[in-house]
Amino acid sequence: MEFQKLVGKRYSVRAYDPRPVEEERLARVLEAARLAPTACNLQPFRIIVLPTKGREKELLRIYGRPWFVQAPLVLAVCALPDESWKRKSDGWNAAEVDATIAMDHIILAATEEGLGTCWIAAFDPDAARDVLGLPRAVVPVAFTPLGYPADSPPPRKRRPLADLVRRDRW
Amino acid sequence: MEFQKLVGKRYSVRAYDPRPVEEERLARVLEAARLAPTACNLQPFRIIVLPTKGREKELLRIYGRPWFVQAPLVLAVCALPDESWKRKSDGWNAAEVDATIAMDHIILAATEEGLGTCWIAAFDPDAARDVLGLPRAVVPVAFTPLGYPADSPPPRKRRPLADLVRRDRW
Repeated sequence: MEFQKLVGKRYSVRAYDPRPVEEERLARVLEAARLAPTACNLQPFRIIVLPTKGREKELLRIYGRPWFVQAPLVLAVCALPDESWKRKSDGWNAAEVDATIAMDHIILAATEEGLGTCWIAAFDPDAARDVLGLPRAVVPVAFTPLGYPADSPPPRKRRPLADLVRRDRW
Repeated sequence: MEFQKLVGKRYSVRAYDPRPVEEERLARVLEAARLAPTACNLQPFRIIVLPTKGREKELLRIYGRPWFVQAPLVLAVCALPDESWKRKSDGWNAAEVDATIAMDHIILAATEEGLGTCWIAAFDPDAARDVLGLPRAVVPVAFTPLGYPADSPPPRKRRPLADLVRRDRW
């Protein structure tokens, strides 16, 4: 659908239908992440696809809300700061931004497929590291369930554009 | 257009037509950023809309490639780490991720409008701070020109999905 409509349709889904996500839909969601831009095209991110079935208790250590494991899948996006572009002038590392772009593409592609997501940053990083077996050099950036929504969009609250946009300079 | 197609159409535009960006297109691009998800919906980002005309020399201090100022507009997305959500367990600050999501929405909304962008992280942070008059607490995260493309998409190179996706755990 048109991007404006897609952006308006996306919301943080906090109740999921347990029915499976079709492989071809998952493939299109992952492909959108693969095509995402990253600094110098280094793609310093990895996506972990986590089926929730039988693994609920372990996954709830990462994020404790019951709806986190209601969907058939959870996706984790991790950054690889050792493989990413660094800005020379101040040493800034692009890994987290690059992983974020990939996750945003995932969230939007899922919406196009009629699937629900919820961007979760409030996970437990130590539990994530432990449950997923992440090496030290891998940084978990965001999680989302991936499944069919079983709730309705809440009313959308956003600041007016005038609060967010400036012209010419700060 | 369909999101898969949109993602495939987006590329880093490095030559721009000087013709103006219509106000209604700019408004839709900014609206997509306004609707972007942010941690706890705090929207800790600001967008600065910079007309390039007559200001080329100053803007080139931020990023020196001539095409940076070829488009009629440059957009800057800044993060506000003092106004963002912080993760209690490790103090991680969501501001940069939130600003990145806003910029990704901008880039994709621009593509839908037929406009070109190029995500620039390799800017000079000190020059950005100086030229834009940014207070200390405001962090420039990304810049992009915004205008009609005057080049063609280069061949797309990406790692295969098998390099980027893992199943079940790391």
